[in-house]
Amino acid sequence: MTKGRLEAFSDGVFAVIMTIMVLNMKVPTETNFAALRSVVPVFLSYVLSFVYVGIYWNNHHHLMHAAQRVSGGVLWANLHLLFWLSLAPFATAWLGENPHASEPVAVYGVVLLFAGIAYYILTRSLLRHHAKDSALAIAVGRDQKGIASLAIYAAGIALAFYRPWAACGCYVLVAIMWLCPDPRIERNVRE
Amino acid sequence: MTKGRLEAFSDGVFAVIMTIMVLNMKVPTETNFAALRSVVPVFLSYVLSFVYVGIYWNNHHHLMHAAQRVSGGVLWANLHLLFWLSLAPFATAWLGENPHASEPVAVYGVVLLFAGIAYYILTRSLLRHHAKDSALAIAVGRDQKGIASLAIYAAGIALAFYRPWAACGCYVLVAIMWLCPDPRIERNVRE
Amino acid sequence: MTKGRLEAFSDGVFAVIMTIMVLNMKVPTETNFAALRSVVPVFLSYVLSFVYVGIYWNNHHHLMHAAQRVSGGVLWANLHLLFWLSLAPFATAWLGENPHASEPVAVYGVVLLFAGIAYYILTRSLLRHHAKDSALAIAVGRDQKGIASLAIYAAGIALAFYRPWAACGCYVLVAIMWLCPDPRIERNVRE
Amino acid sequence: MTKGRLEAFSDGVFAVIMTIMVLNMKVPTETNFAALRSVVPVFLSYVLSFVYVGIYWNNHHHLMHAAQRVSGGVLWANLHLLFWLSLAPFATAWLGENPHASEPVAVYGVVLLFAGIAYYILTRSLLRHHAKDSALAIAVGRDQKGIASLAIYAAGIALAFYRPWAACGCYVLVAIMWLCPDPRIERNVRE
Repeated sequence: MTKGRLEAFSDGVFAVIMTIMVLNMKVPTETNFAALRSVVPVFLSYVLSFVYVGIYWNNHHHLMHAAQRVSGGVLWANLHLLFWLSLAPFATAWLGENPHASEPVAVYGVVLLFAGIAYYILTRSLLRHHAKDSALAIAVGRDQKGIASLAIYAAGIALAFYRPWAACGCYVLVAIMWLCPDPRIERNVRE
Repeated sequence: MTKGRLEAFSDGVFAVIMTIMVLNMKVPTETNFAALRSVVPVFLSYVLSFVYVGIYWNNHHHLMHAAQRVSGGVLWANLHLLFWLSLAPFATAWLGENPHASEPVAVYGVVLLFAGIAYYILTRSLLRHHAKDSALAIAVGRDQKGIASLAIYAAGIALAFYRPWAACGCYVLVAIMWLCPDPRIERNVRE
Repeated sequence: MTKGRLEAFSDGVFAVIMTIMVLNMKVPTETNFAALRSVVPVFLSYVLSFVYVGIYWNNHHHLMHAAQRVSGGVLWANLHLLFWLSLAPFATAWLGENPHASEPVAVYGVVLLFAGIAYYILTRSLLRHHAKDSALAIAVGRDQKGIASLAIYAAGIALAFYRPWAACGCYVLVAIMWLCPDPRIERNVRE
Repeated sequence: MTKGRLEAFSDGVFAVIMTIMVLNMKVPTETNFAALRSVVPVFLSYVLSFVYVGIYWNNHHHLMHAAQRVSGGVLWANLHLLFWLSLAPFATAWLGENPHASEPVAVYGVVLLFAGIAYYILTRSLLRHHAKDSALAIAVGRDQKGIASLAIYAAGIALAFYRPWAACGCYVLVAIMWLCPDPRIERNVRE
């Protein structure tokens, strides 16, 4: 019951975040492809953020699917994750308008980093209520991918002040890492 | 379970897309019907896009209803469809403000085309997990309507550079094609 | 199943309509109560529209609760209702900024009238699939309130060109008419 | 059934409110941290409102979880609560842009106060349909925390005209009061 409503509410937030980000793409006042080309950086930052929210929705789904019990602390850990993700439209818009400037690139990485940390906290607060041999504990495993992501985000933030494009490369790399199907999760879904 | 959450999340995205498109209709500063008339092209493009999102919601509903199993690949194929539909507010706004210009009309068609392709991919990725005599395979059938739609979108995109109004006619034609009740689907709903 | 998803999707649209209407209330640039007073007409139009969407949500809920079967035609009748309601943010914003001008007051009434007609069509398309002694047919009854509402909306639209405030009075009257608890529906809920 | 749809609809409204508030954070036109610093007050007001909507979602969840029956009056009491919460984006934006001005700080408190009163009314209208020894009556208890919150909001509104920062302190205090885990609710969740 509690789990179902947590999922429904989170789905609503994920859906709204994903969809309002597109409002950042301002309609060009002229009607030629040159005008459209000026929207491309905003579009690319939108694609990246869409993929990230999609990855979080996917992972959130698998995590909650495996969870059997939800505590008051988990409700707040979940809201904490949604808070950082809700900053994505802001960070995406700033990045999209200034893809070569250090500060917007760094701020985008900070939002990714804190969302990653929030997801980690959510995982831990769920594991506290599950046995070591539970479906959840097995699905989460040692979470090397999650920890590696945090490290790459941090590297991206530092790189943003020297080579903004390299920082963006870090963010794209993590997204690709998560997009590739994970055999453990696939097995989980099939069972 | 997985299917239910995929449906709930998609419904949220469909609902938000549909509703934020209306924000493109800027309130006129004057208070006469002449001022209102200037909103008419934006209104008509809104109606067309509303109908399209409605058609996708309907088809998505029937598709998922018939599906029995959902894989990790299906989750991403579904997100891919939602991505193209999430561009509808942008394409609709540009079209509504410039209904006689080639580029906006072509871009609108491109969004429709890619959404159609994404729907086709979603169908295929679902079919991979279902038998040839499953309810899903029967409901999808040979999908001639879907393939014809893609061809008409492509024709519309090409026409946009010569006769923008004819391209708009193509888009309206496909919408009417899908609005007419499909006996197969009706039977499906009744059973 | 089909009914559940229709409800979930409609709830999403209702929720987004209700909430984005508040974006019409522009934050005053000054920080005194005089500046706030300039927001009052927009606020009042928001309250009226919020109540209307609330009434539709309530009635929609009771209607679908009593329904046992849903056809393809019902899905489209439902989308038709949502279409007219999705115009509420536009009509509300225009009315709120010009509460004494004929055209915005009339347009608001037109949106209410068509939403009312759409609700009537939805009711009829549902009744076509239910017996005369079904819970749905009893809950809907002769629907005198619905038909009276349509007449008052039409009167309001005509009045808008002579006495805009009287037209607004008509719209408020219908809202009050529906806000008062309906003994039939209350009984329905209890059972 | 009725309860499930009330929850789903409320979740949708909560999700949209939470997420559109972030649209108030305007992307800076410059790309340095000084420009970002100008967003800080808006960001802080966003954090506060996010926490408040989160608290309401949490409490609403526990309240409806314990409820067994829902009447027509409860549906409207719930919409009344959502109405006041839907004003949060407006109040948050005005406060965020003018955190040291009396009127915006007072208006923010008024929205909190009326949302608190609406929640109290919702609680009472639910209790009317439940026995004194029901899970709901036990979960609500004497509701000292709710009543204390109303008093602190009122104090904050009065303080806003003398020491705006002290009023903000009141609002933060109530949020912290509710964030701390409540042993009764935790027990409730576990059972």
